[in-house]
Amino acid sequence: MLDKTQGFFVVAQTPFDETAAVDLESIDTLVDFYIKHGADGFTVLGVSGEAGKLTQDEGLHVAARYIQRAQGRPVVVGVSNPSLAQLTDLSARVMDLGAAGVMIAPAGGIQTDEELHGYFADVFRRNTGIPTVLQDFPFASKVAMSVPSILKLVETRAEIQLIKEEDLPCLNKISRLREGGGRRVAILTGNNAMYLPLELGRGADGPMAGFSYPEMLSEVYRLHRAGKVDEADDVFDLYLPLLRYEAMGFWGVSARKEMMRRRGAIRSATMRMPGPKLSTADLQELDRLSARLQKKLAERGG
Amino acid sequence: MLDKTQGFFVVAQTPFDETAAVDLESIDTLVDFYIKHGADGFTVLGVSGEAGKLTQDEGLHVAARYIQRAQGRPVVVGVSNPSLAQLTDLSARVMDLGAAGVMIAPAGGIQTDEELHGYFADVFRRNTGIPTVLQDFPFASKVAMSVPSILKLVETRAEIQLIKEEDLPCLNKISRLREGGGRRVAILTGNNAMYLPLELGRGADGPMAGFSYPEMLSEVYRLHRAGKVDEADDVFDLYLPLLRYEAMGFWGVSARKEMMRRRGAIRSATMRMPGPKLSTADLQELDRLSARLQKKLAERGG
Amino acid sequence: MLDKTQGFFVVAQTPFDETAAVDLESIDTLVDFYIKHGADGFTVLGVSGEAGKLTQDEGLHVAARYIQRAQGRPVVVGVSNPSLAQLTDLSARVMDLGAAGVMIAPAGGIQTDEELHGYFADVFRRNTGIPTVLQDFPFASKVAMSVPSILKLVETRAEIQLIKEEDLPCLNKISRLREGGGRRVAILTGNNAMYLPLELGRGADGPMAGFSYPEMLSEVYRLHRAGKVDEADDVFDLYLPLLRYEAMGFWGVSARKEMMRRRGAIRSATMRMPGPKLSTADLQELDRLSARLQKKLAERGG
Amino acid sequence: MLDKTQGFFVVAQTPFDETAAVDLESIDTLVDFYIKHGADGFTVLGVSGEAGKLTQDEGLHVAARYIQRAQGRPVVVGVSNPSLAQLTDLSARVMDLGAAGVMIAPAGGIQTDEELHGYFADVFRRNTGIPTVLQDFPFASKVAMSVPSILKLVETRAEIQLIKEEDLPCLNKISRLREGGGRRVAILTGNNAMYLPLELGRGADGPMAGFSYPEMLSEVYRLHRAGKVDEADDVFDLYLPLLRYEAMGFWGVSARKEMMRRRGAIRSATMRMPGPKLSTADLQELDRLSARLQKKLAERGG
Repeated sequence: MLDKTQGFFVVAQTPFDETAAVDLESIDTLVDFYIKHGADGFTVLGVSGEAGKLTQDEGLHVAARYIQRAQGRPVVVGVSNPSLAQLTDLSARVMDLGAAGVMIAPAGGIQTDEELHGYFADVFRRNTGIPTVLQDFPFASKVAMSVPSILKLVETRAEIQLIKEEDLPCLNKISRLREGGGRRVAILTGNNAMYLPLELGRGADGPMAGFSYPEMLSEVYRLHRAGKVDEADDVFDLYLPLLRYEAMGFWGVSARKEMMRRRGAIRSATMRMPGPKLSTADLQELDRLSARLQKKLAERGG
Repeated sequence: MLDKTQGFFVVAQTPFDETAAVDLESIDTLVDFYIKHGADGFTVLGVSGEAGKLTQDEGLHVAARYIQRAQGRPVVVGVSNPSLAQLTDLSARVMDLGAAGVMIAPAGGIQTDEELHGYFADVFRRNTGIPTVLQDFPFASKVAMSVPSILKLVETRAEIQLIKEEDLPCLNKISRLREGGGRRVAILTGNNAMYLPLELGRGADGPMAGFSYPEMLSEVYRLHRAGKVDEADDVFDLYLPLLRYEAMGFWGVSARKEMMRRRGAIRSATMRMPGPKLSTADLQELDRLSARLQKKLAERGG
Repeated sequence: MLDKTQGFFVVAQTPFDETAAVDLESIDTLVDFYIKHGADGFTVLGVSGEAGKLTQDEGLHVAARYIQRAQGRPVVVGVSNPSLAQLTDLSARVMDLGAAGVMIAPAGGIQTDEELHGYFADVFRRNTGIPTVLQDFPFASKVAMSVPSILKLVETRAEIQLIKEEDLPCLNKISRLREGGGRRVAILTGNNAMYLPLELGRGADGPMAGFSYPEMLSEVYRLHRAGKVDEADDVFDLYLPLLRYEAMGFWGVSARKEMMRRRGAIRSATMRMPGPKLSTADLQELDRLSARLQKKLAERGG
Repeated sequence: MLDKTQGFFVVAQTPFDETAAVDLESIDTLVDFYIKHGADGFTVLGVSGEAGKLTQDEGLHVAARYIQRAQGRPVVVGVSNPSLAQLTDLSARVMDLGAAGVMIAPAGGIQTDEELHGYFADVFRRNTGIPTVLQDFPFASKVAMSVPSILKLVETRAEIQLIKEEDLPCLNKISRLREGGGRRVAILTGNNAMYLPLELGRGADGPMAGFSYPEMLSEVYRLHRAGKVDEADDVFDLYLPLLRYEAMGFWGVSARKEMMRRRGAIRSATMRMPGPKLSTADLQELDRLSARLQKKLAERGG
């Protein structure tokens, strides 16, 4: 069950080939790469997975391929959609494919707590029983949810088993969610992992984020769980300069894909239009950040 | 007390002279014009009063002049401000001048009910005891308030004595507010009076709106109170073509000022920059709408 | 060709049965109703057609049924979508079905003219040659387009053949578009036709709007074209009280469906969730507005 | 002249005492602290200076005190205001006090390039000749400006002498502004300095940002100018864990004030309401981040 989740869910990319067609074969290598570097589960068709640029059929094919290759690890599929009919239609289909659950952020335009609760009542009237990750990501969804509202949603809807908490700032929000009592759900954190060690200190159950060095997210999580808080910080700080580079919205996603291409995880770093295209200056910055990281890793290793 | 309000509060213009300086003398003629046409009270420094284009000193002078000339009728002063310090500073000053109360819409950026209630807790920590009109005008404030939220504010803060209800659509919202129980506050309605007879049918206590023929708002209100519902509709419908013209945002305010200049209420129709300037086509439309209205009024009179 | 359009395009409803399933048979009676009352063309899957509540397959079935029944009249299909892939996919499919063109509003999130032009470059890279209605409806799309931007889009993309102008206020915007020179495209106007006679006076080529009495839109258009400007206003003013009732967002659409059900155009007034449900008070208001309209029509007729 | 600026402008805090009154004496110690740690100039009454929580008089007193104590270094005053009258009124007053210029972000609600240019035409009609920092901070202003728009503003208004560039992502935007040709203006960068070394590599003239260790911003700037790019990165990376903590919006500002209190720069870390109040967990995180930083600094020093 998702509410017992402890570990690292990787927010997975959607690989495209040079012609911007979905590259299903690269999904296989990418899944293997993620697993090799410590992923305990997958979140596909999220914002940084470029879900918003796929047709419905493409989205289904991507989800199916991830599920197929995941070696039994849970795959959560993002289904947020301004159309409730499309959201519930897609939910049913991916559950049929074997997804562990769906991830939903409230639809744009919701402005009050009353509308928020009405929205999820509508969602679960059709999505009854489907394990759900509630995504609290107001930067992208444009909908804010207060701690009391989230706790009320958790209390009233058993489907909500996990919260992806990526409001900003998020630290005290995590503390308040944990102190809120009631049914315990898992809390994983996003925001490109920029605050991961601190979030773990506040009671988060792990990261749900993407990074071109997923082994860092995995290692920081495991060190922290083992009580090695300083070692966790040391590892995190090594990667922070690159991490913050990849946190620059879709430009960061583009950089992340390029880094993963260099590491052999995917064949092409192509982003589908509309999206950024890395400039020469961007690539040179990645060269430098990458070289500096390698040097620090070598020093640590030695 | 504002919570016993029954009647017509006019949303008052701020007159400027040809050089865009505040025209204090025109406030005197304008107040007389409003009173002659049935105004029971005044709301000054609202959105359509161009409050957002005044310095703080100018705003105080405008409010003072209205209060001075109002012949004892209550004057409510709009004090909404992104800065809480400025809001409370202005509130204290206009109460000293003799205002009947202040009107407050929640500050932009508020996104959850928790933030909304926190905001008003902050407001009333300083504005303790000041009679307050809660303005529910999400189109301008960018903050939505649900019926339960408004009722909770009313219950917890005795300062709130009147609700200016101008959400869209507003009819069922008025019904729900009236059915909500609890302490009774007055409800006046805005939205340029486009739905006035219906709103009165739902339990509103009168209009708080502006129109170049304020006698219509007054008459519709009085007929409705007297149970002459059809007559109220007949009067309203006569003016509706012009009313909806004046409902076009700041363009409508500009048209309204021009009509009031023609009627002798103010000396100049100037809007302060940044704001619209009527074109020849606009003026010709006003000519036609005005002529058609006069014709219908003559037919009714005869 | 759409750029020669002169006349009345009705913004068409999507009928649902009591279970909220799409009622394809009611589309047939509805099309006949629209044609009988003067529709020269159809706009389907727009905002008030509840397109946002349909699955992709449902949308295609609705569009196909409209095209089939339209007796050769042009059918424009709304394809706006946050996903460019879905927008272009749907465009290709409805053109295959025989649509006269597609209607597109810019995707949410666009904030500068540069992004706007980049967006449409991306759109037309795939939608090359597809006749397009550019919808200028910032209230719903959350994207504003200035007159110079619209004119530049028209100049650079021959696909844009018609502008649905429903910014608010819109009168001077229509004038400026007409005075802008360059290639002439058709301009039809929306905003629930609240400003129709004035818009025709500014150079609009007709309404693209919905109303439960489509014969009014048709008659006002035809009278205006015939130079009978006062008669056009007289007809318009008769219906204005009901028209402004139906202009209350989705609540107005719900009222419109109820009125059309009463007139026999559709079997059920059901709105799909999430959406408003008319209260007893709403229905009573419709009774009164309807009775008053019938009385006025009878007086005019006699 | 501001357009020749090269160096570090510190975005300055507004100190409050325990009762939330402005603490003018702490401004003196704070200015001395900033200068001691390398500040070449000051930006006061910005977003993180809590300008939005001051009355107009308080703002003037804060600006005056900074100017008085600045030892001749330039002080730029933030004057952005939804009311154009208040913006220009405040501009005139602070220039009289000896400010080097004013900083302006476009007012909320501007949606098109045409509106943007109209807005600044209105601004400079009154602010003619006042040296101006154009703040490109869409996260706070809610107004996006494209590179062509900014370049056009620079070309048409000689008053604009400096751009505070803090859009996200900003790296390619800085490159494009530099490549844009035309009159050269200074570019300083904000965003809490999270991308400072990269921004300097793109052609920025220095940071305009706040941090509890301003000596880092100063040192990174000076090393970079001296061509010691790797050393600049080394210094920056040391502080990055704390820097990103202080980048958490107003929560970060609160942490920054606490750190500066600990360093003796101000007497109290009070934020004026509405604003965050640090929790025990927050303070413990600052303890750890601070201790880790001191350890690294000691290691480097040794």
